[in-house]
Amino acid sequence: MADHGFTICAYNRTVSKVDHFLANEAKGKSVVGAHSNEEFISKLKKPRRVMLLVQAGKPVDDWIETLLPLLEKGDIIIDGGNSHFPDSNRRTQYLKGKGIRFVGSGVSGGEEGARYGPSLMPGGNEEAWPYVKDIFQSIAAKSDNEACCEWVGDEGAGHYVKMVHNGIEYGDMQLICEAYDIMKRGLGMSNKEMGDVFAKWNKGVLDSFLIEITRDIMYFNDDDGTALVEKILDKAGQKGTGKWTAINALDLGMPVTLIAEAVLARCLSSIKDERTKASKKLEYVGRSSSFEDNKAEFLDDLEQALYASKIISYAQGFMLMQEAAKEFKWKLNKPSIALMWRGGCIIRSVFLKDITAAYRSDNDLENLLFDDFFNKAIHKAQPGWRNVVSKAALLGIPTPAFSTALSWFDGYRTQDLPANLLQAQRDYFGAHTFQIKPEYASEKYPVGNYVHVNWTGRGGNVSASTYQA
Amino acid sequence: MADHGFTICAYNRTVSKVDHFLANEAKGKSVVGAHSNEEFISKLKKPRRVMLLVQAGKPVDDWIETLLPLLEKGDIIIDGGNSHFPDSNRRTQYLKGKGIRFVGSGVSGGEEGARYGPSLMPGGNEEAWPYVKDIFQSIAAKSDNEACCEWVGDEGAGHYVKMVHNGIEYGDMQLICEAYDIMKRGLGMSNKEMGDVFAKWNKGVLDSFLIEITRDIMYFNDDDGTALVEKILDKAGQKGTGKWTAINALDLGMPVTLIAEAVLARCLSSIKDERTKASKKLEYVGRSSSFEDNKAEFLDDLEQALYASKIISYAQGFMLMQEAAKEFKWKLNKPSIALMWRGGCIIRSVFLKDITAAYRSDNDLENLLFDDFFNKAIHKAQPGWRNVVSKAALLGIPTPAFSTALSWFDGYRTQDLPANLLQAQRDYFGAHTFQIKPEYASEKYPVGNYVHVNWTGRGGNVSASTYQA
Repeated sequence: MADHGFTICAYNRTVSKVDHFLANEAKGKSVVGAHSNEEFISKLKKPRRVMLLVQAGKPVDDWIETLLPLLEKGDIIIDGGNSHFPDSNRRTQYLKGKGIRFVGSGVSGGEEGARYGPSLMPGGNEEAWPYVKDIFQSIAAKSDNEACCEWVGDEGAGHYVKMVHNGIEYGDMQLICEAYDIMKRGLGMSNKEMGDVFAKWNKGVLDSFLIEITRDIMYFNDDDGTALVEKILDKAGQKGTGKWTAINALDLGMPVTLIAEAVLARCLSSIKDERTKASKKLEYVGRSSSFEDNKAEFLDDLEQALYASKIISYAQGFMLMQEAAKEFKWKLNKPSIALMWRGGCIIRSVFLKDITAAYRSDNDLENLLFDDFFNKAIHKAQPGWRNVVSKAALLGIPTPAFSTALSWFDGYRTQDLPANLLQAQRDYFGAHTFQIKPEYASEKYPVGNYVHVNWTGRGGNVSASTYQA
Repeated sequence: MADHGFTICAYNRTVSKVDHFLANEAKGKSVVGAHSNEEFISKLKKPRRVMLLVQAGKPVDDWIETLLPLLEKGDIIIDGGNSHFPDSNRRTQYLKGKGIRFVGSGVSGGEEGARYGPSLMPGGNEEAWPYVKDIFQSIAAKSDNEACCEWVGDEGAGHYVKMVHNGIEYGDMQLICEAYDIMKRGLGMSNKEMGDVFAKWNKGVLDSFLIEITRDIMYFNDDDGTALVEKILDKAGQKGTGKWTAINALDLGMPVTLIAEAVLARCLSSIKDERTKASKKLEYVGRSSSFEDNKAEFLDDLEQALYASKIISYAQGFMLMQEAAKEFKWKLNKPSIALMWRGGCIIRSVFLKDITAAYRSDNDLENLLFDDFFNKAIHKAQPGWRNVVSKAALLGIPTPAFSTALSWFDGYRTQDLPANLLQAQRDYFGAHTFQIKPEYASEKYPVGNYVHVNWTGRGGNVSASTYQA
C-alpha cells in the first residue's frame, strides 16, 4: 500500500517487529508505526480501515474483540488471512450488529505477490467497498491494465472464492507433479530435459506461473551440480484450504473430483514411512513395463493431458462456486473471479484469460466446457489425454488427477450412467425405491414417482425406513 | 429379538402403528405393545434396555429427553439408527453424567437383515455390554457359527465402524457399476450375458451379497420381457454416511480415495439434466473407439480389476479405522470388525472371511496388503487390472473407482513420490520451507530441519507466514 502512495500505520503485537520493519523494509516509505493498539487506532483516519493479517481462526476473533472498544460506528475491519468462509459469514453479521463494517478478503500471491501486487478477493459488508476499493485496486496485480480485484459478494464470498482458488492450486500442482513423475520414471528423463519441456510448455497453452517456476526448479542445482528438487523430501501437508474445498464440495454434493484427489494425494505422500515399507512388499506386475513409443509424440500427448485435466479442474471449480452462490444466496460475478485469478496469484496464467473471455461473452454459461474455445480445446486434447492415462496405468505410474479428470469427463458427457444399477441394488436390499427414466414412463411407472419392486418375491411390510445408504 | 425367544415391548409415537404391528407381523410372537412412553417404560425389566430405531440427528436427542424423566440410574439406552459418531461420543458422555448407560450401535442388513439376522456394531458405555450381549449376539447374523456382533469400543466407536462400513458399501457398489458399464457399453453385452458373468463371479473370489443381487437384477425382467434395470433412472443420492466417511478421511488426513470417488460419482450421477446437455456437446475422440480384444480374457481381467480395487478399498477403510482409533483413543479389534461384516450386512462376502483370517493371524498387521493372502492376490490381479483401467480410458468409459484404486496402489508402493516437486514449488512461491530426504542429509541440510532456498535470487525477509497452501 505504501508503494502505491497510501500512508499506512503498521502495528504488531511484538512491538520490536514494528521497529525492525520501520528501520528496514519500510525505510523511506510512507509507513508510520504504532506500539500499542490505542496508538495504532488513534493514528487512523475515519472511517478507520484496519486490516488484519493474522493466523486464521481464533486469533482473528481475538483481535476483533481487542479492537472493538477502540472503534466507532462505520469503521471497517478487513481480514486478509486465509479464514474459513463460515467464519467470515459469522463475522460480517456479528460486526454489522455493532455498526462495524467487515471485509473478509482472500489474498494470494505468496512472497512476491505480497510485495509486487497480489490477487485480492474481497467480500463481506458491501457498504465498506467504496472505502476500500481504491486502495485494493491500486495495490492489486494488473492483467492487461485491469486490476485483479473486484468485489466478490456478501459475507464470506471473498474467502469462499479464495478457498476454491487454493483448491484449484492444489489441483494444478498435483497435475504438474504427475507430468514430472511420468517424464522422470516413465520416460527416464533428466532434470535438464524436463526443465526444457516445462520451458517449452510455458510458451504454449500451459503458460502460467506454476509451469514457469517448475521450469526454474528443474534447472536449479545444488552445490554438487545435481538438481536440488531430487533431494527434497516427498511429504506434503494438507491441513488447509484444499481440504476445506473438498469437504465443501461433498457437503454441497458437487463432483469436484480433481481437487479431492489432489488433497488425498498429499495425504498419501505424507505417510512416507509406510510407503517405504510397502515399496519393498509390493512389486509392479504388468504386461508392458517399459515405455516404447515415440517420446516426442508422447510429450505432446502429455501436454494435452495436463491441459485437458486443468480444464476439467477449473470447470469443476466454477461448478462448485455456482452451486455455493445458489446455496448461500451470493451474487458471484464469474468473469470477475477469473480476472482476479489472472494476475498476482499462484494460479495466474494465460488460461485464466481464456476463462475470463468465456464468462465475459456469456456470464450465464452453464459449464466452461460448453464455451466454444474450451469445447474445441477439450476435443483436441482427448486422444493424447487418453493415451497418457492408459499408458501410465500400464507402466505403473500413479496419475490420480489425470485419471479422475478423464473419468469425470467421460461420466459428465454420458447421458446414461450405470447409477441405474446402484438404484436397483438399493431398492433390492433396502426397499429404498427408485424412479423410472422418463422415456420408459408408463401407467405402472409414472414420471417422477418413487417405486419399489419386490425383487426376490420375499420380504414384507417391515422395511428399514431409517436406513440411508 | 422376539424370534430369538426374548419378550419385547414395542412402542411407536403413532400408536396405530403399534396396533397394526401387533395384529400382523408380531402376531403369535413374544411381543407386547405400549401406547405411551410411560406404559412402555413401565413394562420393561430393570435395568431397562430401551432401543431406539428412529431417524438419526435431532429425533434421537428428543427421544432421549423424553425418556430421561422415566428412567432410573443404571438403565440402558441403545441407539440403533445411523447416527453420526460425534453425536454418539457426546451422548455417551452426557448420559454417563446422568447415570444412564448409552450404547450406539451400527445396524446393517437392510430389509432382510432386519428380520433374519443383521450385522450389529455396538459401542458406547462398556458397562452396558453385559446386559446387551446375549440379545445382540442371538439376533445377529451368524458366519461359521460365530455371531456377527462384538463390542466395538468406547463412545461412538460402533457408529464409526458402521459409517466406514457404509462408505465401503458405497465403494463396492460403485465398482460393480463400473464393471457393468464396461460390459454394457464397452463390450456390448446383453443383460442376460452380464447376469451370467455376475453368476460366475459369485462362485469365485468375488462371492458376495452385492454380486449375488446384481446377478438377480440383471436377470429381472419387466412385464415386457426386457430388463427392468435399464429403465431405472440413473440418479443416486449421497447425503449420508458415505459422505461422512469421505469427510472424516479428509479430516484425519488419510488417503481414502475409493470411497471419496464413489461418493463423488453419485454426485455426478445426480446432475443428470446437465449431463444430458453435455452428452450433446461433448463427443468421444480417441485413437481406438471399439473393443477388439478377446472378450473372455478381458472378462477375466475385469474380475481381477474388481477384486483388486475391492482389496484397495478395504485396505483404505482399515487404515482409516486404525487412524481414528489413534485419534479418538479407542481400542478397535480389527478381526472382530471383519467378522461383524462377514454376515448379515450389505457388504457380506467370502472376502471378509479372508480379512478376518488376516487380522486373526496378526492383529497388528499394518496394512491388509502386507498379509500373505492379499499380497499374493494383488500381485496376481495387477496385469488384468492395469489392462482394464487402460482400455476404459481409451474406450471412453468412466472408471473413477477402478482408476483411483490403481493410482493409489501405484502411489502406495512408491518410495519416492513426486511430492518433492510440490514442496519445492511451495517453498519457491511462499517460502514454506522443506525437508531433505535423509539419504541426502548433509551439514547444509541436516535431517529433519526445515530449510528455505532463495530459488530466484530475489525476495527478502517479508514472507507470507500466515499463508497456508
